[in-house]
Amino acid sequence: MVGAGQLARMTHRAAIDLGVELRVLATDPDEAAVHAGADHLIGTPDEITDLRRLAEGAEVLTFDHEHVPSEIIEQLENEGVTVVPSARSKRLAQDKSYARERLGELGFPLPPFRLVHSSEEVADFGDEYGWPVVAKAPTGGYDGKGVWMVDDERAEPVPAERLAAGLLLEPKLELQRELAVVVARSTTGETRAFPVAETVQREAMCREILVPAPIPEALRQRAEELAISIVEATDSHGVVAVEMFVVDGDLLINELALRPHNSGHFTIEGTETSQFEQHLRAVLGWPLGSTELTAPAVVTVNVVGPSDGSDPRSRLAEAAGVPGAHLHIYGKEARPGRKLGHVTVRGPDLDSARDSALAAVMILEGNRSEEVEDV
Amino acid sequence: MVGAGQLARMTHRAAIDLGVELRVLATDPDEAAVHAGADHLIGTPDEITDLRRLAEGAEVLTFDHEHVPSEIIEQLENEGVTVVPSARSKRLAQDKSYARERLGELGFPLPPFRLVHSSEEVADFGDEYGWPVVAKAPTGGYDGKGVWMVDDERAEPVPAERLAAGLLLEPKLELQRELAVVVARSTTGETRAFPVAETVQREAMCREILVPAPIPEALRQRAEELAISIVEATDSHGVVAVEMFVVDGDLLINELALRPHNSGHFTIEGTETSQFEQHLRAVLGWPLGSTELTAPAVVTVNVVGPSDGSDPRSRLAEAAGVPGAHLHIYGKEARPGRKLGHVTVRGPDLDSARDSALAAVMILEGNRSEEVEDV
Repeated sequence: MVGAGQLARMTHRAAIDLGVELRVLATDPDEAAVHAGADHLIGTPDEITDLRRLAEGAEVLTFDHEHVPSEIIEQLENEGVTVVPSARSKRLAQDKSYARERLGELGFPLPPFRLVHSSEEVADFGDEYGWPVVAKAPTGGYDGKGVWMVDDERAEPVPAERLAAGLLLEPKLELQRELAVVVARSTTGETRAFPVAETVQREAMCREILVPAPIPEALRQRAEELAISIVEATDSHGVVAVEMFVVDGDLLINELALRPHNSGHFTIEGTETSQFEQHLRAVLGWPLGSTELTAPAVVTVNVVGPSDGSDPRSRLAEAAGVPGAHLHIYGKEARPGRKLGHVTVRGPDLDSARDSALAAVMILEGNRSEEVEDV
Repeated sequence: MVGAGQLARMTHRAAIDLGVELRVLATDPDEAAVHAGADHLIGTPDEITDLRRLAEGAEVLTFDHEHVPSEIIEQLENEGVTVVPSARSKRLAQDKSYARERLGELGFPLPPFRLVHSSEEVADFGDEYGWPVVAKAPTGGYDGKGVWMVDDERAEPVPAERLAAGLLLEPKLELQRELAVVVARSTTGETRAFPVAETVQREAMCREILVPAPIPEALRQRAEELAISIVEATDSHGVVAVEMFVVDGDLLINELALRPHNSGHFTIEGTETSQFEQHLRAVLGWPLGSTELTAPAVVTVNVVGPSDGSDPRSRLAEAAGVPGAHLHIYGKEARPGRKLGHVTVRGPDLDSARDSALAAVMILEGNRSEEVEDV
């Protein structure tokens, strides 16, 4: 597995259960999966020699992030390395603009979008769809990084350096909800979706995952079908997270991640098989595990580094006292705004599970008061 | 944690979740917890200098086995090391004869027993209680090792070397069932029992764990109360497994283990908190987690090295196809008769969960036919 962050760390945990030998590529011995004891090499994800070393003797090469350039993945494929997901499908997660075009060609519902390179094009788009406009860097963004609001291009133009590599523009949509569906597709072709999750963002970062998403059954089915169709139509393998917007009661596809995903962390306790074990099964060509919920409701809340720089680990014992709270700490150095862990709670309904998960997270984050919206 | 076998491996997995730093003492870099990447020292569990190195900088010292002599644990305690469980309570698991005497003094129900040192005493015991007689080495036995049947001492005497250290004798009881209750007691004094399990032995080794034990509710409550009383009366801390016999519809205490235990592996998926996380919480003085079942029935079946010496890992992909089977492979070298892993299945009832767990284990063990009793 290329990458050694928390996704690799949780994949390592699943590999321990299965007796599967996982080796990760870390850029730094201080990364989360290395702290958890994953067998590792130190190297750079865009250095083909490091990737060759990583893949040596392995059955399959996979990823915990999007930072290996397509050309390098292709080169490894040409050299006979089994890479899952493939360079072609991985590009859907690496290049937002390519993903939009490809999903559009395949007939999937998308927000209006345009790839632009000049200030004039930004202004035209805003005039056509209304201000403000959402501008995204086509590559490299995550957790709100690489996304900007443009209030009025003529009054305050986008800096030229952001335009240089192109910008993906979207109208600012009235989002009723955001959903995420994690789907696994084995190299055998077997495909299974995990239950549809609602993701709640605050400060442009996913903070809560509510499962099952509190939406009408018909919409939930449509979300699941859409996600499965996308994975099949794009011939993707491994675990794929499909992010969607609910706008005017209907679904629009936002982004894909071709790897285990934050929105799927609830599966560790919340479904029979975790997304991490499922990813291993899928990339190894094993039968997939059951994705049934283990409780009526499951809520995951992310633990984010508090602004005072304190470490949530200093408050673990207290948080452990919240009934039903499953604490997951990634072993990363505490920094304000950094995702440092998550808490999952199973319950009879979303409200009670969410209350408990939030209670544990508030303790871990040092009881900082925080605006919590009703959902 | 002193020891680096599968119990330490599964404790490491729990420590990853919690972000707790676990260091284990391995005698060999090929042990299960070392393969899983646990931070480790190589050393010997009865060398105090190795234990001092292990405990250096740690908040607490604990165990995955019974092989550290009491005197050494006491010495560490005297040097100011926080050891949980303490030398005094750990002895309950190390010396069967001491445990019987202590539990007898405290008024707990026990099988008839006698510690003997001579052939005459063996003969007298058999004459009094009937032949055959069960003879146990007071220390060092596990998985049927250190236990013998004596059919008739006068016709075929026990070898003198077995008598030298004393032998614990018991009548051969008519066991209706064997039960195990895993209880955790935090250093704060908080105590919680996991659901009562029935353990099914074959060839003197625990092969199946059925939860909840299929016994009348009143007996289940009595088993739980007995187990909690023992842990409290002996002032034990950490996770304690209490093994019991059901004889004539009532309970007799067999043995204690003061560590996570095979009979508690079902808790990884089967209860809100696993026994491994619970052990960490208990020895660290944290609040204990919920021990509620996550399904109506949970069955764990051990994976034992098949007689042809083949490795169950070679059949992982096939076993992964059994619906609901949670595979746990310990990463140990395959040897006939060695515990190499376990499979847990949650289900609506014991029969269906047991069928699935056995199906997966039969695949892992190479489909060897095996006498499976009805339970």
